[in-house]
Amino acid sequence: MKNNFNVTQKLISAHLIDGEMSPDAEIGLKIDQTLTQDATGTMVMLELEAMGLDRVKTEVSVQYVDHNLIQADYRNADDHLFLKSAAQKFGIWYSRPGNGVSHPVHMERFGIPGKTLVGSDSHTPAAGALGMLAIGAGGLDVAFAMAGEPLYIKMPKILGVRLKGELPDWVSAKDVVLEMLRRYDVKGCRGMIVEYFGPGLGNLSTMDRHVIANMGTELGATSTVFPSDDEVRRFLRAQHREEDWTEISLDDDATYDLEDEIDLSALEPMIACPSSPGNVVRVKEVEGKPIAQAVVGSSANPGIRDFWVVGEILRDRNVHPDVSLDINPTSRQVVQNLIATSSFPSLFRSGARFHQAGCMGCIGMGQAPASGKISLRTVPRNFPGRSGTLDDQVYLCSPETAAASAMTGKITDPRDLGKLYDLKYPRYEYPKDLIINTDMLLAPPDDGREMSLQKGKNIKSFPEFPPLENTYEAPVILKMGDNISTDEILKAGVKVLSLRSNIPAISKWAYAVIDEKFYKKARKVYDEHGGHIVVAGENYAQGSSREHAAIAPRYLGQIAVLARSYARLGWQNLINFGIIPFEFANPEDYDAVEENDIIKLENVVDNFLKGQTHYATNKTRGETYELKHNLSIRQINVIVAGGVINYFKMSSGKIHAEHS
Amino acid sequence: MKNNFNVTQKLISAHLIDGEMSPDAEIGLKIDQTLTQDATGTMVMLELEAMGLDRVKTEVSVQYVDHNLIQADYRNADDHLFLKSAAQKFGIWYSRPGNGVSHPVHMERFGIPGKTLVGSDSHTPAAGALGMLAIGAGGLDVAFAMAGEPLYIKMPKILGVRLKGELPDWVSAKDVVLEMLRRYDVKGCRGMIVEYFGPGLGNLSTMDRHVIANMGTELGATSTVFPSDDEVRRFLRAQHREEDWTEISLDDDATYDLEDEIDLSALEPMIACPSSPGNVVRVKEVEGKPIAQAVVGSSANPGIRDFWVVGEILRDRNVHPDVSLDINPTSRQVVQNLIATSSFPSLFRSGARFHQAGCMGCIGMGQAPASGKISLRTVPRNFPGRSGTLDDQVYLCSPETAAASAMTGKITDPRDLGKLYDLKYPRYEYPKDLIINTDMLLAPPDDGREMSLQKGKNIKSFPEFPPLENTYEAPVILKMGDNISTDEILKAGVKVLSLRSNIPAISKWAYAVIDEKFYKKARKVYDEHGGHIVVAGENYAQGSSREHAAIAPRYLGQIAVLARSYARLGWQNLINFGIIPFEFANPEDYDAVEENDIIKLENVVDNFLKGQTHYATNKTRGETYELKHNLSIRQINVIVAGGVINYFKMSSGKIHAEHS
Repeated sequence: MKNNFNVTQKLISAHLIDGEMSPDAEIGLKIDQTLTQDATGTMVMLELEAMGLDRVKTEVSVQYVDHNLIQADYRNADDHLFLKSAAQKFGIWYSRPGNGVSHPVHMERFGIPGKTLVGSDSHTPAAGALGMLAIGAGGLDVAFAMAGEPLYIKMPKILGVRLKGELPDWVSAKDVVLEMLRRYDVKGCRGMIVEYFGPGLGNLSTMDRHVIANMGTELGATSTVFPSDDEVRRFLRAQHREEDWTEISLDDDATYDLEDEIDLSALEPMIACPSSPGNVVRVKEVEGKPIAQAVVGSSANPGIRDFWVVGEILRDRNVHPDVSLDINPTSRQVVQNLIATSSFPSLFRSGARFHQAGCMGCIGMGQAPASGKISLRTVPRNFPGRSGTLDDQVYLCSPETAAASAMTGKITDPRDLGKLYDLKYPRYEYPKDLIINTDMLLAPPDDGREMSLQKGKNIKSFPEFPPLENTYEAPVILKMGDNISTDEILKAGVKVLSLRSNIPAISKWAYAVIDEKFYKKARKVYDEHGGHIVVAGENYAQGSSREHAAIAPRYLGQIAVLARSYARLGWQNLINFGIIPFEFANPEDYDAVEENDIIKLENVVDNFLKGQTHYATNKTRGETYELKHNLSIRQINVIVAGGVINYFKMSSGKIHAEHS
Repeated sequence: MKNNFNVTQKLISAHLIDGEMSPDAEIGLKIDQTLTQDATGTMVMLELEAMGLDRVKTEVSVQYVDHNLIQADYRNADDHLFLKSAAQKFGIWYSRPGNGVSHPVHMERFGIPGKTLVGSDSHTPAAGALGMLAIGAGGLDVAFAMAGEPLYIKMPKILGVRLKGELPDWVSAKDVVLEMLRRYDVKGCRGMIVEYFGPGLGNLSTMDRHVIANMGTELGATSTVFPSDDEVRRFLRAQHREEDWTEISLDDDATYDLEDEIDLSALEPMIACPSSPGNVVRVKEVEGKPIAQAVVGSSANPGIRDFWVVGEILRDRNVHPDVSLDINPTSRQVVQNLIATSSFPSLFRSGARFHQAGCMGCIGMGQAPASGKISLRTVPRNFPGRSGTLDDQVYLCSPETAAASAMTGKITDPRDLGKLYDLKYPRYEYPKDLIINTDMLLAPPDDGREMSLQKGKNIKSFPEFPPLENTYEAPVILKMGDNISTDEILKAGVKVLSLRSNIPAISKWAYAVIDEKFYKKARKVYDEHGGHIVVAGENYAQGSSREHAAIAPRYLGQIAVLARSYARLGWQNLINFGIIPFEFANPEDYDAVEENDIIKLENVVDNFLKGQTHYATNKTRGETYELKHNLSIRQINVIVAGGVINYFKMSSGKIHAEHS
């Protein structure tokens, strides 16, 4: 290993399968571990089933159940049974409902310094606290990582943040990442990995680093990385896993693409105002506003300390009569260790509402605030409505600020508790040893191939899609404008989300935001023409990366999109699921096509394989349009196969999937 | 007091305001205490507002928040704020969300032997465990009790159940009431109060008696009553309320209308099979069936002992990998005292999922089981779909049976644990002293008249209804058949239930099950004719007592129902909200009227006040129908006033409302 690498470069170079470590170049990384949660995991398991995978090829893959724990009807519970059976079949660890939130549990039980982790959850980078390279990705990316394929990303720029000094009383890790958000806002670190280094690190526990790495996602960063130092060793020792520790530190001459510095000693309590994690101000600037709720917990403040400090602040004091203090513990292990402290009964005595371990309000699964009332939360995000209340007023802050405000009934700088209540800052002493209990983690059997998947009635196998044909004659059933987002192609919301493991059912919502008759039209022309075509303007399929915005149209027989241009992620998803993303060679041809026109595509497969130009003949208008595409050879093979899952099966699991 | 009274007769005679204590006679009872919960309480508070009540006239009224704690959107949290403001305004104690389930909390903190309690929750009789007369009723009944009006009921028959012997190991109070359900099924005690007496009582703690009294509702009983003896004194002493104790025992020569006997020593673990609490068999008869869930808690097993015993059974053992064990604690006080035992960490260690204190799965608020999988629950009811899962398989059993089965993964007679695990029955020792914490109970201010109600956007004031007019000419917009239920008049379900505090919104669902255009029609004819009439066959408005099946039609302008006959509760509700319940004097006239016929009602007020016969003229068909009614003078005054709330206001809060 060269001796001028930073930690991120060491992690990347040790896993580099493909590409060069120069900024913006596409690189392929070997993935050691994967993490899925229940909200995204059901589709991942259905994709593994469709791929015909026998057993995952990672060192460790873990399926967590933490999002959908409310169980308002049978669907959640059915999903849990399905995920358990799939985990057993495919050789995946299964973390039972109630065991906790994926990120802290993974770090406590499975994380290993120096390893790579990809997870179908955007806060996966939390494991960077251990000196891992941990990246959040879409479901199919994770499924392919499980199948042994590399993860493709663009080589990020590396932002080195030097920490110095020591956090003052009443200021904690959340304030550090809120300070980063104040500086960089929610897009400032896109295309970057943030790496923390410097003398201030010694004052941050591994769980503190988790808080910072977790919420690094809100900066837009690809990941956040910390070194693996003596503190990580202490953490792993307390977890009874010291043998998993290795030191990973930056080389003496290491450099960064960009550098910044935070003086921890100069920090004060910070708070993100509604409705963006980037709206950060000092708590002092908004103090005194009355609050109706405070929520402590979530993967962005998951440690024992984060709950302990609240119990200590509230010792012999009550939650204000106007406030609901909701405690959202993050894992059974955290609770078991918290019970061993006197802070736990203090929490109950104070009037806090103690909930089951899981994601809860962080992803709008219960404990929504009253309309228009202020809710202080230690969760990572406060996007409008994410709490479950449309006109919510969610502020993000540290457990200290949340507890102080829950006590006074208004936004309170916790440093004022000293004056108000003669309260000394309760400083947590990390125990040498923790209660460790892995009984809620089910290890997979040695060979699960003969086991069957337990599918409730809302869980349908991933549909089989046919390979590409050589000739199509099909109508344009929708003509759209510019900047159509995946939210318009397939909307989110409680009603639709519960159908995520049921493609036939969720397909009824395809394009419903734009044209509520789309589903009926698509079904009708499928019977008559074997499929349909849609036309779009610039930047088609922008926005969220949801795969269903390609899977559902494909299920309804979508052959091709003819667009002026595409958003990157949406374009990739179309290819992955076998829809041809054609572009008009002459953009003005977009204006010529109308809804209901019959389009003929001839010699499609031949043209692809021979590298010849494609044309679309408009039978209705007697016109012909030249088409183009930017597909690589590999992507052409995927399209011809009918999608990446078919291609994976054809090539017997030996491909490098199309990601970036 | 006569010396041949049983406990029930003593309680009734001490509160008798009106009527005679002979079976089936209508009696009016003075009400000392009321209890409302959040699901029914919002409408009660809106009714109090509409009545113009300054302050409740009971000794104690308490508003609990225990049902709607999931807070999937702003509505629940808004309701909580509204209920708190209403409690303050009207002089009601407010039990904050998280403080616990109404029935155990009320018994622990407010119940007093010898008092009467009426609650807008069907399990209110649980307080009978303290030697109280506690009755569940509809919202308006409770509102009137709060206003100082008596509660009218039919004098029940009294069933004396003599208990002898002592419960064997592994058999507990739930098995006693399941044995009663085996004997009487779900209708066997209708029109009765069940009173327990005899030497076996000494072996049942006050919380054990709560279990039996709570689930007495499932027998169809009006209430369940226990004496107030030394055990109740011990209970109140542990609650730091010994001064509230008085002895209430049956006289030596007391008799019962009916008698039965249970030998506790001969009982064995019992279980109610799907999908009725009356489907009771011995656990032995269904043992071995695989289960997917066990739920311990709810008001039907709320005591510390009920959770403690589960923690002890699971000490050093794990919940079976195929089972979700959901712990549903019932109050903060119970949890605080449980934390003081080593059983509490044992529960967490075993893998149980610990939820916030509230009603939860007992009323389908979360933790719904997987489809078609067996769920064992200690809750009082297993009606089909009540769990939230339509094809549920819910069995009702004791905490011992639930814990044993959660451990083995199949229905297990807990007596077999001795053999299977060499386990001695853990017998709870009631502590002399408990942790008492009343900080989550907000006392009302001395005078709340100037306080305003805090209404979220889903909470609308009770609408004002006009008094009766003398002449109407309005169309029949719906003609129905026989046995129309309140479920058809106004359906239940999550969508509609969340509108219970919003009459304008819920009215859109009036009769939607029968005619989805009803709302539009009613609005249209209201503009043209000032109201509408509906026609029904026999037994109109049968089923559930929901008031909204009268309020919503009234809101849409319903003047009268012309029916062949009425169900009792539905008939009362029509009167209470000012809809005239006419009957055809000649039943065959029902056949003559058709939808859209214009009906003229003349001299309506005059005829009522002068006791003259009413006629309906069918202007469309040129026919005249003689009508009749069974209204008392008081009920006529209510109808003429435009409903009982108007009547209450006119008579300055000095009426005896129409209940029975």
